[in-house]
Amino acid sequence: MILEEIGRPYDPAPLDFKNNAQYEPGYVAINPKSKVPALLRDDGTLLTEYPVIAMWLAKTNPQAGLVPVDLEGETRCAEFLDYVCGTVHPQGFTRQSRPNRFALRAEDEPAVVAQGRELAVKYMNVIDSGWRGDTWVLPGGYSIADSALFFIEHWAARRFNIPLPPRLATHFAAMLARPAVKRTLELEGLPT
Amino acid sequence: MILEEIGRPYDPAPLDFKNNAQYEPGYVAINPKSKVPALLRDDGTLLTEYPVIAMWLAKTNPQAGLVPVDLEGETRCAEFLDYVCGTVHPQGFTRQSRPNRFALRAEDEPAVVAQGRELAVKYMNVIDSGWRGDTWVLPGGYSIADSALFFIEHWAARRFNIPLPPRLATHFAAMLARPAVKRTLELEGLPT
Ligand SMILES: N[C@@H](CCC(=O)N[C@@H](CS)C(=O)NCC(=O)O)C(=O)O
Ligand SMILES: N[C@@H](CCC(=O)N[C@@H](CS)C(=O)NCC(=O)O)C(=O)O
Repeated sequence: MILEEIGRPYDPAPLDFKNNAQYEPGYVAINPKSKVPALLRDDGTLLTEYPVIAMWLAKTNPQAGLVPVDLEGETRCAEFLDYVCGTVHPQGFTRQSRPNRFALRAEDEPAVVAQGRELAVKYMNVIDSGWRGDTWVLPGGYSIADSALFFIEHWAARRFNIPLPPRLATHFAAMLARPAVKRTLELEGLPT
Repeated sequence: MILEEIGRPYDPAPLDFKNNAQYEPGYVAINPKSKVPALLRDDGTLLTEYPVIAMWLAKTNPQAGLVPVDLEGETRCAEFLDYVCGTVHPQGFTRQSRPNRFALRAEDEPAVVAQGRELAVKYMNVIDSGWRGDTWVLPGGYSIADSALFFIEHWAARRFNIPLPPRLATHFAAMLARPAVKRTLELEGLPT
């Protein structure tokens, strides 16, 4: 989505999680963390961690205006990215998408899903009440923080049927109207 | 530890987790995320998320040289911080320190601790094999990445009795020799 906003050509390389492709030697040799996203840059080096990839893309493509240029704006942007990627996603949503990572017995998986849902709701409410921007996350306008928020909103609204708090509902609708977001969903074979 | 390296006066405000002080109205009003670290800045605003607090302290105190000044160095520093704070700590160590967050039945807690230990070992090996620096994490020298690595090394070595891989063992010993680290451990009432 960020590369679509920037308008730079890229080569998507989806991984087949259903068949555990992230643990296969081919991918482990590329990224020993066995995670996505991972960005292979033009110089052949790999960058990992969503917040870091997003920040690097934004800073190396300043014409796209995807991160505030002042330190305070950049700091708030990074703080938002870290909350989504380090807490909301791994604690709230991963419990719902991969309960087997948390449940020690198959029969406990529904309880893990319920726990993840409760956490996700709590975290999204923290985001809603701490909202600093107008339509977009940051007062300075659209940024990489919006793309991070979109992926959890998308899971909540379209996969787990969790109602979005008011600010997030408005944000999600505004995101869906962006051409770069539409192109990304189409590329993933998802409804726009 | 970072403020000790910088040498700026600060006012530590420990939270009593044993009594769940992080969920009490007084603290929730300060930080709705109910987490530490949280930094109340001189202008009265709060900053959260370890990687972001660390980066902000480093950038606003450039004389301390705690983050590389070039974009690539800063990017690798941020990538390291995010792995420690977004994966190693919450997936590996929190399973060991707070198994009740993961186990649905008290009798399953030992299995969660074992799972956390296995993950922590795996993550520390990823760090060891991907090591880019000499003694310190980054090739450019001591940085905020070292302070993040120290806290997981400290838990591994002194709390959970997990042997450190070679690079991390050398790093941990070098950290313990730093005056700022000694002062921080003393302040926490921990052996130096
Ligand atoms: N800390 C990483 C974590 C990314 C992450 O957890 N990605 C998921 C995809 S949504 C993944 O790779 N899952 C595969 C797995 O955990 O096996 C980041 O923020 O980029
Ligand atoms: N994403 C946050 C998480 C920090 C975190 O998990 N801190 C722990 C202390 S080591 C905490 O506040 N635990 C209290 C709790 O989870 O209730 C960060 O990196 O700063």
